[in-house]
Amino acid sequence: MARGRISRLSVRDIRFPTSLGGHGSDAMHTDPDYSAAYVILETDAEDGLKGYGITFTLGRGTEVVVCAVNALAHHVLNRDVGDIVGDFRGFYRQLTSDGQLRWIGPEKGVVHLATAAVLNAVWDLWAKQEGKPLWKLLVDMDPRRLLSCIDFRYITDVLTEEEAHEILQRGQVGKRERGARETPDVDEHHVSTEEQMLTEGYPAYTTSCAWLGYPDATLQQLCSEALKDGWTRFKVKVGADLQDDIRRCRLIRNMIGPEKTLMMDANQRWDVPEAVEWMARLAEFRPLWIEEPTSPDDILGHAAISKALAPLGIGVATGEQCHNRVIFKQLLQAKALQFLQIDSCRLGSVNENLAVLLMAKKFDVPVCPHAGGVGLCELVQHLIIFDFISVSASLKDSSSKQDQGGVPANLDGPASFEGREKEGQP
Amino acid sequence: MARGRISRLSVRDIRFPTSLGGHGSDAMHTDPDYSAAYVILETDAEDGLKGYGITFTLGRGTEVVVCAVNALAHHVLNRDVGDIVGDFRGFYRQLTSDGQLRWIGPEKGVVHLATAAVLNAVWDLWAKQEGKPLWKLLVDMDPRRLLSCIDFRYITDVLTEEEAHEILQRGQVGKRERGARETPDVDEHHVSTEEQMLTEGYPAYTTSCAWLGYPDATLQQLCSEALKDGWTRFKVKVGADLQDDIRRCRLIRNMIGPEKTLMMDANQRWDVPEAVEWMARLAEFRPLWIEEPTSPDDILGHAAISKALAPLGIGVATGEQCHNRVIFKQLLQAKALQFLQIDSCRLGSVNENLAVLLMAKKFDVPVCPHAGGVGLCELVQHLIIFDFISVSASLKDSSSKQDQGGVPANLDGPASFEGREKEGQP
Repeated sequence: MARGRISRLSVRDIRFPTSLGGHGSDAMHTDPDYSAAYVILETDAEDGLKGYGITFTLGRGTEVVVCAVNALAHHVLNRDVGDIVGDFRGFYRQLTSDGQLRWIGPEKGVVHLATAAVLNAVWDLWAKQEGKPLWKLLVDMDPRRLLSCIDFRYITDVLTEEEAHEILQRGQVGKRERGARETPDVDEHHVSTEEQMLTEGYPAYTTSCAWLGYPDATLQQLCSEALKDGWTRFKVKVGADLQDDIRRCRLIRNMIGPEKTLMMDANQRWDVPEAVEWMARLAEFRPLWIEEPTSPDDILGHAAISKALAPLGIGVATGEQCHNRVIFKQLLQAKALQFLQIDSCRLGSVNENLAVLLMAKKFDVPVCPHAGGVGLCELVQHLIIFDFISVSASLKDSSSKQDQGGVPANLDGPASFEGREKEGQP
Repeated sequence: MARGRISRLSVRDIRFPTSLGGHGSDAMHTDPDYSAAYVILETDAEDGLKGYGITFTLGRGTEVVVCAVNALAHHVLNRDVGDIVGDFRGFYRQLTSDGQLRWIGPEKGVVHLATAAVLNAVWDLWAKQEGKPLWKLLVDMDPRRLLSCIDFRYITDVLTEEEAHEILQRGQVGKRERGARETPDVDEHHVSTEEQMLTEGYPAYTTSCAWLGYPDATLQQLCSEALKDGWTRFKVKVGADLQDDIRRCRLIRNMIGPEKTLMMDANQRWDVPEAVEWMARLAEFRPLWIEEPTSPDDILGHAAISKALAPLGIGVATGEQCHNRVIFKQLLQAKALQFLQIDSCRLGSVNENLAVLLMAKKFDVPVCPHAGGVGLCELVQHLIIFDFISVSASLKDSSSKQDQGGVPANLDGPASFEGREKEGQP
């Protein structure tokens, strides 16, 4: 049971000098220092449990997010944890619709990142008080209770609370049966989705080999190691220089062979016509998707790119910088993406991600989380495992590339961090 | 000539307790304290000129924007003013695409508001050094130079630099002739658009009578005064309670009579279906537009509302919380608005507003600025006068409501501030 009154909120600015080794570098973020605004909630309960929550940043500006967390603190302090999670929708609304603070958002940028960090800490505290990992707290929760955590404002034109309830009800049935899987030779009828996750894990891909700032020799060495470690899906950063991209993509495709999966990620480098032209040139390397081909705000642009690249067998993936559920709603409405990439720290925590997972299910678009940054891999696995067990019940890629197998989670991150977890070990 | 090196950037957190009187209150911002993050740039030039720039806020959170301004300061300090404005596109890109800071935007929310404040100060400094008001600096500037201030990234699919140049070239011709006007009885052929602005001014409307927090008696008194002062266009806040809205709209329509213009503003209160239903009930009061019917991020939602309300003769207006040119681009592409409301402090200053004015011209959508907040009226008049003289050359409302006359600028603001400037006195 949720218990105690929030007696303290502290927030730290934590930075790692990843730019020194070119880790995490891409076409738009050439020198990131992977960092986080780190929130700790304490209560007056005697259990001594604390809630830890983060939002991910790239170095400079973390202090701005810390400042925004402090601006939100008055909504959190002295609140009973039971009251917060008992009306979690109301609490979410209180943070995101503060009549003065919302002007500097709303529900986007710094204030929303701060909201994510605070709410992530609340969810962590709640899960600890319940004695469960977050994914299990979500999976075990009554559907009505789960929906009471979601703010449906601005999305009822595509998903009402009743529709969401029907999706979760179907998931309840699915939880007691098997999910679609990648290895159909196992006896499927006696394994629940939850058992499946616990025994088989969730598939992942790696970006750790092919950051844009890595020289070819490093790329080759890391790719060779990843192959030995059993990785089967690889993402390469592109977008800065076409000839470089062709050389790097050829290198990595030759190393991984024709059967393994290759994704590409432009990190918003292109305008719409440029994205289409550039990807036509890289189509020979048969990417499953091009990720973030243009501005994360450009729904119609992503739709145009999706339409143009479909004949080449290339899907569009985006989401790590989509700032709220309203943008995701439109990306789905406009058929602007074929792979939806939630992030655990940019949307308003679990609450808003639940809304996006349910919308993705309605539109039958697979969810492939963004991770890799400091702490993102730890956080997002809870969301995607909940999605598999209670919502999507599928590892099948519902895109046109059925031969590619499961929907990969991005556990990229710099090589020195958590990003190199082996496939199948969520 | 631009001169000197930026030797100091200071930034202040300035707040006014407007919430005490309900000034500025609306359906989503019930207790705003009109405030600003105020940037002052100093140079080592001997002229002693300083550049002043602001971004508008609603109270809490101003300190977060101040923190973000300080995070941007290193891009500005020790730079030659001539170098900055000589490659203004590059400087804009430097601020908005900082490889670490952009993660907490990009080009949205707190960091973009901070960018606006800094760039507004640069433009103010430049105009002072040139000895001209900002609108005149813009009007006199060579089109190629003007375009070199704009970052066309992410908008080239609807507006290339060459197309923008053609628009400005046509404006150059227009500058020497008359613009379409509201009072065609004047001898039109001997008045340039610039002379027209100087002698006749730019039309405006007022919201000062009808903030949501005002009791009916206050509304009546202020409306009566505004009518005496010569106002002909009135905006009323709606969206919190339908019966209240009907009563208030009836009150104000009865006071202003059938001929004068009434606009309505819901400040993002509704979901898409709710907006359509609610406005169908208010249609009897013949509003020119419904402003911000739903989330500012919902391009497709605004398009659906526009389509549904067109048969009722009601247009959709939005923009004061549209966070960048990419959102405006899509609103235009999707026919999601009939009145485009730029804001001088939310977009990346003059630079980004120029891009939006040019896109609006291409799509033939009238621009009706948002103002009213602290300093917004002072700032935005320069943009709209430039728009009239060099871009749109029209005061005609290009919406279906041709009988409504000119395109109004919003000079609303709380009654105690600058918001009650008389129509025709820009």
